[in-house]
Amino acid sequence: MRPTARHHVRRVKERARYDSGAVQAVLDAGFLAHVGFCADGQPFVIPMLYARDGDDILLHGSIASRLMRTLADGIAACVSVTHVDGLVLARSHFHHSVNYRSAVCFGTARVVDDAAEKAAALARFVDAILPGRAAESRAADRNELAATLLLRFTVEDASAKVREGGPRDDPADIGQPVWAGVVPQQMRHAAPIPAEDCDLQPPASVRRLTGMAGDAA
Amino acid sequence: MRPTARHHVRRVKERARYDSGAVQAVLDAGFLAHVGFCADGQPFVIPMLYARDGDDILLHGSIASRLMRTLADGIAACVSVTHVDGLVLARSHFHHSVNYRSAVCFGTARVVDDAAEKAAALARFVDAILPGRAAESRAADRNELAATLLLRFTVEDASAKVREGGPRDDPADIGQPVWAGVVPQQMRHAAPIPAEDCDLQPPASVRRLTGMAGDAA
Repeated sequence: MRPTARHHVRRVKERARYDSGAVQAVLDAGFLAHVGFCADGQPFVIPMLYARDGDDILLHGSIASRLMRTLADGIAACVSVTHVDGLVLARSHFHHSVNYRSAVCFGTARVVDDAAEKAAALARFVDAILPGRAAESRAADRNELAATLLLRFTVEDASAKVREGGPRDDPADIGQPVWAGVVPQQMRHAAPIPAEDCDLQPPASVRRLTGMAGDAA
Repeated sequence: MRPTARHHVRRVKERARYDSGAVQAVLDAGFLAHVGFCADGQPFVIPMLYARDGDDILLHGSIASRLMRTLADGIAACVSVTHVDGLVLARSHFHHSVNYRSAVCFGTARVVDDAAEKAAALARFVDAILPGRAAESRAADRNELAATLLLRFTVEDASAKVREGGPRDDPADIGQPVWAGVVPQQMRHAAPIPAEDCDLQPPASVRRLTGMAGDAA
């Protein structure tokens, strides 16, 4: 993917990456995207679950969803994913920032009708939320597939942007009596809460995620 | 804010809220938004730091930023904020989901030129990242204010959407030998990493955030 106008990062260029590996690394670290499209000049930015499939991004929703049907028309869309890794605390207000990894992907979506491809995609969404979970739970049946609109979003251009490391303070501020540094942050998972109608023990996927004892995997 | 076409939630309507309190609660729980706008029919979705100020959303960036200058023209924009609170693990692939709180805000931005208002806004951004931090660090000087483009985004319509609780499995799946429930997730902060040129002790704002001992506040 070469830098072209719409996805070329203009600000703080040294943070930008255009290789698909950098973009895919950001996509693979999450499952929630913000998907944008325009309708009559009005931009919409909607949170959606996603799963990466090779160079494509899979999106899904109800066949009754206005959003999904709009995207299914193949209009220009933008899929953005961002992870915040830490708070960057500088001596000055001006240099405060956050450490992050982001991917901004431009392209268009098309509907996937093939039942086997749809079923495999639903499994990908489940494993995107929690690796190994698809094999532990029931695959979609014919009615569920019929109720699901699956979109394959082809990434035409994309960029990744990463900020890491400490604050970039002005030299004149270094000697000031103000602490400066980074507070790392990370998503942590708490103990699982079983459904009221479930008296089974948590499966391997959950035990791996939450660091519970008893996982033989 | 009344439900009108562009922000009226159509899917799973019982999750939608249109009162400003619900929207503000989502906004106040974060500092990273995904901001969307259209340029020549192409949607852009860019991650940006934000801070709420009453009913408005403050955005800022460099005066050299193409994105900021585009938004400053007062074009239609959409500011979306989403927090993921947990993984919802159902017996079937189809009913897997996540618990979340999201806000989708439609409106337009305008440039704020007043120096005092800009300086106060920069302090708000700092406190949005870490409450109490603005008072511990140096306020913006004249040159920094001149290099900052501050936008006040007026929210014309907005909706909040919240999913909480356990999986909604099909009755036929309840008896299956598949664990079902929720894995809560939450952002956690690790021990602060001082800048290389800083030998001070972490301040109260950081100690409160990371649960370090020695905080008298």
